[in-house]
Amino acid sequence: MSKSKLASFFAPRSVAVVGASATPGKPGRTVIENLVANGFKGKIHPVNPRGGEICGFAVSETISDLPKGVDMGIVMLPAAQTPQAIADCAERGIQSVVLAAGGFAEVDHAGEDLQAELKEVIERTGVRVLGPNTAGHISTPANFTSSFFPLGDIPKGPISYIAQTGNFTGAMMRSIMSGEHYGVARCIGLGNAVDIDEADILEFLADDPETGAIFVYLESLRRPQEFLKIARKVTKKKPVVMLKGGATEDGAKAAMSHTASLGSDDNILDGALKQAGVVRIDEFTHLFTAAKAAAMMPVPAGNRVGFVSPSGAFIVHILDICKQRTGLEFAKVTSKTQKRLGEISPPFINITNPVDVFPSATVNGMEFAWREAMTALLKDPNVDSIVTILILADELGEMKLDFIVDQKKRFPDKPIYVSFSGDENSNAAAKAFLEPKGVPTFPRIEDPFKVLDIMTQCRKGLAKG
Amino acid sequence: MSKSKLASFFAPRSVAVVGASATPGKPGRTVIENLVANGFKGKIHPVNPRGGEICGFAVSETISDLPKGVDMGIVMLPAAQTPQAIADCAERGIQSVVLAAGGFAEVDHAGEDLQAELKEVIERTGVRVLGPNTAGHISTPANFTSSFFPLGDIPKGPISYIAQTGNFTGAMMRSIMSGEHYGVARCIGLGNAVDIDEADILEFLADDPETGAIFVYLESLRRPQEFLKIARKVTKKKPVVMLKGGATEDGAKAAMSHTASLGSDDNILDGALKQAGVVRIDEFTHLFTAAKAAAMMPVPAGNRVGFVSPSGAFIVHILDICKQRTGLEFAKVTSKTQKRLGEISPPFINITNPVDVFPSATVNGMEFAWREAMTALLKDPNVDSIVTILILADELGEMKLDFIVDQKKRFPDKPIYVSFSGDENSNAAAKAFLEPKGVPTFPRIEDPFKVLDIMTQCRKGLAKG
Repeated sequence: MSKSKLASFFAPRSVAVVGASATPGKPGRTVIENLVANGFKGKIHPVNPRGGEICGFAVSETISDLPKGVDMGIVMLPAAQTPQAIADCAERGIQSVVLAAGGFAEVDHAGEDLQAELKEVIERTGVRVLGPNTAGHISTPANFTSSFFPLGDIPKGPISYIAQTGNFTGAMMRSIMSGEHYGVARCIGLGNAVDIDEADILEFLADDPETGAIFVYLESLRRPQEFLKIARKVTKKKPVVMLKGGATEDGAKAAMSHTASLGSDDNILDGALKQAGVVRIDEFTHLFTAAKAAAMMPVPAGNRVGFVSPSGAFIVHILDICKQRTGLEFAKVTSKTQKRLGEISPPFINITNPVDVFPSATVNGMEFAWREAMTALLKDPNVDSIVTILILADELGEMKLDFIVDQKKRFPDKPIYVSFSGDENSNAAAKAFLEPKGVPTFPRIEDPFKVLDIMTQCRKGLAKG
Repeated sequence: MSKSKLASFFAPRSVAVVGASATPGKPGRTVIENLVANGFKGKIHPVNPRGGEICGFAVSETISDLPKGVDMGIVMLPAAQTPQAIADCAERGIQSVVLAAGGFAEVDHAGEDLQAELKEVIERTGVRVLGPNTAGHISTPANFTSSFFPLGDIPKGPISYIAQTGNFTGAMMRSIMSGEHYGVARCIGLGNAVDIDEADILEFLADDPETGAIFVYLESLRRPQEFLKIARKVTKKKPVVMLKGGATEDGAKAAMSHTASLGSDDNILDGALKQAGVVRIDEFTHLFTAAKAAAMMPVPAGNRVGFVSPSGAFIVHILDICKQRTGLEFAKVTSKTQKRLGEISPPFINITNPVDVFPSATVNGMEFAWREAMTALLKDPNVDSIVTILILADELGEMKLDFIVDQKKRFPDKPIYVSFSGDENSNAAAKAFLEPKGVPTFPRIEDPFKVLDIMTQCRKGLAKG
């Protein structure tokens, strides 16, 4: 395949929206609104037999009426019309096409035939196609998206997603944008992957300077050997984290009717992914929580955690969780750190890591206790990362969290993750303060440890290089 | 032990706050503010050598100066002063005491000695003691709490907690109150459980008409045989869900310094709890998510779930999760249901359970598609419970969720759990609408299934009876 053609998917100079609509709420209009909202600098050419104007852009009645030099087509037509549309695009010189429509091999035999026809026209014309059955893709460095889900301006950041479900550039992206404070670089909904597949995209992201970490949701691998070969190289440079849908027989059956995916033997795949340095996860939610950590904090140098907790119960529970489900260990701190933790605690209490910070907070106030305990751990060479759980509530007095932002600057190689117990309104305010400054927060006390475990596994791959 | 004495813990007629403080923010004042905020109808008697008034209540200088007939004491004094305070309370006729102070067997040998002294005075006087090392307890039917964490008015509801950590009646309760929409009946922070222990409380809750479901966090069992014996009876009447801290060696060591808990052999305990019908969970978060479900919805009659999803990827992932980690099955629907699902979907698509509702929504609109798919499943005798994931965003048009509230009324025996993908502001609004009407929502798509699994296990215990 030609790399240059794939590159134009992520930085088109101009785009035709085939099946554009003037009606608010219709996907054929939303896709244009998204382009405008993201400040796409190329030209936008709606195509609709009725002509006229849509969102202020002059409408071409057919693909052949388009001006020359358009390099991408977003085709919003019903499935049956897409093979012809691709042929028309090819004729007009458009070499990259996104196909939104569903109704292909994922539904029935007629759809299978249509998908075969699609393949034939792709091979004949050489047009590169993303989809069908996808909500499109996103490329924030180019201020571009082909998504027809109402997204608005998508925040820029280092995370790229490869997803074998259209929804990822739809509702799920909206969920990230409205609920979190990290941004994305490239986000690709592969859909049925009739042409462009996971290996193509991974290869592009491998050398993409905008992509710092890659998160993957796949229900099947079209070209497993190729994907693994590329992955072996990529994982030495950037984290690659993957959720594989269809790990069980039931799940695999559902994947068949979702994206016409034929599952591979999951156990074999599991071993091969591990060997390639791909970190496999088992919850959809981690595609967001771990991505946030990867966007905001460095990959930890090792598995030795420092934990500052306001509750002995949390320490007990987290020790259990970490032992049972993670490869994390709690750092054995140096005598210097031990001494400092003693200094900030009431005399009768022997504090080590994990740090029960409550006695110190009772004597010294919350801000002092948390800050000094965290600083002592951050300074310790035996500590690779820090997790803290804050207790916030208006009545407890204001706890200024600037010190955590300062610590991030002072110790740029050690990730700091924050979670909460206490008043949910105060927690929301703390999240809104910390995350735009690059400190990730997690609503549940187990989250930071699950995420740290994922990111620590990424380090193993990186260390190989 | 005398049951009547324990009952007075949950419905005191009057209460002395020993170590009361006039200073805002001090625990000795907050405990009084909490009592006022909850509308406690009994008399409140602050005790402080300085005398005067606190929060408008006349202060007694010593315990012996208290009027006769006070039946509960909340003692906020330093550890060393507590044995004498208990003796004084006994002398004044106070038979129930809550001890907040830490600094006993959980810290050092001197603390152990103090705890032994405490035991001795308890045995000698017959006073029943909750604590030490606890943030107190809550009894909403009596508008009462001994908590010194700023809580305000605690919502009433059917959930009772037994927790071997003071924090549960502190920051964690505040987290529930500010983040969720369910209420509690009794909530007991056992602390070091020098007198009143988990078996005492479970016995009280067994016959407590205000308690509908019992959630337990323990780091050790003081009287495992007694607890299990009572549990065997209780679990036939009400769900008992338990997180056992210190399941691993590391966790058990931490439990020793948290609440001076000597761990039992976890494997033996695990089997015994299962036999007694206690459902063991492994995440702190489930103490809140499952409690919400228990408070708002019936226990499912069986393990057959109906699932209405807006995304094929969610179906694939959830099938994997459920197969790998739960005892849930996806209901095989009747031909009548199958027919109805066909009617509401576009002609070329074969929809069954789990229902991919997206094609129907495209044709019929979101509200119709979700409502009709859910109703079809709720009517099906093969379906025990319903989970749905909503996609909400302003631009998608308003989706009125009253139909879910109606469904709850029409099908009172089938739990309905809701989760979200889409805009987080819309999700928050939907939560704020649904939960006060008794429909639980969960932010993460895996949550409802994890919680259903827990509640389905509770059914097994109940069915035995």
